[in-house]
Amino acid sequence: MNPFSDKPADTLSSLGEKKLLKEVRRWLGAAAPASPLGMGDDCAVIPADEPCNLITTDSVVLGRHFEASTPPARVGEKLLKRNLSDIAAMGGKPTRAVIAGLLPGNLHIAWLEQCLGGMRQTAMKYGVLLVGGDLAETPSDLALNLTLLGFADFPILRSRGVPGDWVCVTGKLGGSALGRHLGFVPRLSEGQALAIENFVHACIDVSDGLAIDLLNLLNEAVSAELDPDAIPVHEDALTASRESGREPLDHALNDGEDHELLFLMEPVPEAEWKEWQESFVSAGLAPVSRIGKLTQRAGHPLLNAKTGKPFPHIAGYDHFQ
Amino acid sequence: MNPFSDKPADTLSSLGEKKLLKEVRRWLGAAAPASPLGMGDDCAVIPADEPCNLITTDSVVLGRHFEASTPPARVGEKLLKRNLSDIAAMGGKPTRAVIAGLLPGNLHIAWLEQCLGGMRQTAMKYGVLLVGGDLAETPSDLALNLTLLGFADFPILRSRGVPGDWVCVTGKLGGSALGRHLGFVPRLSEGQALAIENFVHACIDVSDGLAIDLLNLLNEAVSAELDPDAIPVHEDALTASRESGREPLDHALNDGEDHELLFLMEPVPEAEWKEWQESFVSAGLAPVSRIGKLTQRAGHPLLNAKTGKPFPHIAGYDHFQ
Repeated sequence: MNPFSDKPADTLSSLGEKKLLKEVRRWLGAAAPASPLGMGDDCAVIPADEPCNLITTDSVVLGRHFEASTPPARVGEKLLKRNLSDIAAMGGKPTRAVIAGLLPGNLHIAWLEQCLGGMRQTAMKYGVLLVGGDLAETPSDLALNLTLLGFADFPILRSRGVPGDWVCVTGKLGGSALGRHLGFVPRLSEGQALAIENFVHACIDVSDGLAIDLLNLLNEAVSAELDPDAIPVHEDALTASRESGREPLDHALNDGEDHELLFLMEPVPEAEWKEWQESFVSAGLAPVSRIGKLTQRAGHPLLNAKTGKPFPHIAGYDHFQ
Repeated sequence: MNPFSDKPADTLSSLGEKKLLKEVRRWLGAAAPASPLGMGDDCAVIPADEPCNLITTDSVVLGRHFEASTPPARVGEKLLKRNLSDIAAMGGKPTRAVIAGLLPGNLHIAWLEQCLGGMRQTAMKYGVLLVGGDLAETPSDLALNLTLLGFADFPILRSRGVPGDWVCVTGKLGGSALGRHLGFVPRLSEGQALAIENFVHACIDVSDGLAIDLLNLLNEAVSAELDPDAIPVHEDALTASRESGREPLDHALNDGEDHELLFLMEPVPEAEWKEWQESFVSAGLAPVSRIGKLTQRAGHPLLNAKTGKPFPHIAGYDHFQ
């Protein structure tokens, strides 16, 4: 649907803030507790005995993270899942979120209802309470921000890799623009399974692209050598490749918005590795693949293990350029 | 300064996201701890033993909450203080914040630097750590959002008033558009002083206007009778009155963005009240005034105690209309 309307009666402006806030709470329904635990006071109150040691924030903007043609429910879903993926990358569990709408006055009421409906469904699926928010009017742009709280007994950080570590990833990569940038599954269970293992040293979610996100796990003393044949290429990367003329591997390395977990781990005996891999599959989690290893850095931080040379195209999405 | 620039080299687009994030951390300086407690990982980690039972979020948008002519440092200051005022209204202490920038590519780098500089100074003043954030590019609008965590032993909620309760307020009201909408002091110490008193039943910060915010403290069974001579009218309301032709009292009731604390309390003996008032003044806090009382509702929820009739103009700022 067109997010905007020329018919004043269909738009946010016709409602006014007070009625709009009432509607928002109705649309969020069972995912939004009543005050004081939810919306309706100056702050939302979090039960004092609820653990809370993770916080993350992310936004979606029309024209950048979604289009006018994107079903509004998928926009709400994507915004929450982007944040869930950050909690997953720390090995955490999500708890509570607050939403900020930056909305033009001519936004269609039905667009917002459907967007928040998608957020409600996603929140209920992942056990997130939507406890607070703010609505502000913009001159013309449409954006939403969400801040998510969570908890991890043992948060997995980004930079604890040492030479010899294996580079691993969940699921398959590449071609997310065909739909998985909206439909992806945040790897919460997988992250929690990683967080309880002492041999997992570092983790990040693949948002900008495998190649660029991997660089965020490396300090200046190490390089990563990736086995191109071991990188799990998604079927969507093959489809995208036929369209783009680029190699499927290039899509897997650079497309981003996969939201798989990329992690470093201490090598374990082969039998233990196989058993651990099996445990993911038998639990219905995304499979884990070993795609390379860390070495002492000599030259480029990211090398093709087969050729010993850097991969030809390393891009990854950069905002503001 | 003009927030935007036609000279590409002066704009965010010329930096790219990676360099921009590095600069942002430099600009936030001593208010922004290093990862894992701060920016640089998928989530910020909060020490697990730090209490956290309050969360609030607020945005500022160019053209709504500030103008192109507003000094950028005051924009950053205002954004954080709006959130601090919400923590104050719960009787809480602020702890940690995350920032989301929704920024057009032609934003002047110096504008963002000064804006975040103002936020850094305010954060250091009030003991807030800026621990995370997200930057997203917008087609044209300039907005910032902040989510603030905090803690209160005994959070003061909005709706616990009963007939007989006194209506009280900190400081003076009206005419905030002359500058106090930027320069106001969030009433954190005052809120904490209210929160430890069992006789304080409810509290809200005056953001939309005394009249409209007071309605948020009333359930359907009670009305508030205000003594017009007791309402503390700010000197700015007198100045604004000369310009607008409206009564100073009208400004005090309706202007909003005062960010004083409006609260309900159980009546106490007169001597105890005087002593309590004195204790605010001697501690250097904003003075508290008693401006009316709650009664059983019969008709309008907000009455002039002198005339027994509703106040003539009850407005208060409404977004989206």
